[in-house]
Amino acid sequence: IWTTVFGRRMADEALFQFLHYELMQYIYKSADSKETENGRNITKLENMGFRVGQGLIERLTKDTARFKDELDTMKFICKDFWTCVFKKQIDNLRTNHQGIYVLQDNKFRLLSQLSAGKQYLEHAPKYLAFSCGLVRGALSNLGVKSIVTAEVSVMPTILLQKI
Amino acid sequence: IWTTVFGRRMADEALFQFLHYELMQYIYKSADSKETENGRNITKLENMGFRVGQGLIERLTKDTARFKDELDTMKFICKDFWTCVFKKQIDNLRTNHQGIYVLQDNKFRLLSQLSAGKQYLEHAPKYLAFSCGLVRGALSNLGVKSIVTAEVSVMPTILLQKI
Repeated sequence: IWTTVFGRRMADEALFQFLHYELMQYIYKSADSKETENGRNITKLENMGFRVGQGLIERLTKDTARFKDELDTMKFICKDFWTCVFKKQIDNLRTNHQGIYVLQDNKFRLLSQLSAGKQYLEHAPKYLAFSCGLVRGALSNLGVKSIVTAEVSVMPTILLQKI
Repeated sequence: IWTTVFGRRMADEALFQFLHYELMQYIYKSADSKETENGRNITKLENMGFRVGQGLIERLTKDTARFKDELDTMKFICKDFWTCVFKKQIDNLRTNHQGIYVLQDNKFRLLSQLSAGKQYLEHAPKYLAFSCGLVRGALSNLGVKSIVTAEVSVMPTILLQKI
């Protein structure tokens, strides 16, 4: 029985990973692959993430009491929201207490398809854009306007910054 | 506690629904919306479903013993595979024992975004294509070549036919 449960959880994660991959590939294939187009594709992915984030957070917070402050909201994003999408929590949350938050995921699922190694780092932005949008959309629906950026230092660790 | 679990399950389903919707919209927006393009978009969605189905079934059957026959395979698709994607089983499976199977889902999730009513039936094919591909891809990876078609009679019931 343990095996089946494990298998299904892995497949649950996989569904999102595969769909995200198809979405990304399609956007990059259908548009020009010129350097100038890259920014536009990133924006498209980010916008899609934004809409999905908005929809998801609405369902997730349906029966949740209001958050008492921004830190409380960010904790919900790091725990419940992140788990819903990535089946794991954010590993580390830091803040300067002036509206800037840094979220660290040490094993970011969407990078698991990408091989480790510095030569692949240049491809990272297109793997991160959708998720930045997700967080921005979720926060927006909770009344928090934000700019969300992401960076990879050592794969598969990512740092999401919310300003 | 009950509320949270429920909320999360609903959000789990929602993630796939929202992503599928974005994918569909993007394909239809980026291509010409002419009548002649419709068939090509359906094919694109079907192919994406095919690849996702292939990937998913590989994860799902990792620790599963081989299936003893085609009927056994189809039962797995109706129960485990369908549940993985749609969080519910197929409601009814029929076969003529000559390679044709009819799978009936009485509450097909991807149609829940579409209002009931005959005037919307014409839009149904684009909501079904991805899922036909999913099943075809899963079966293909299990060594079963197939043609999978879908039809809606009364929403949100769908009939998937595997030949």
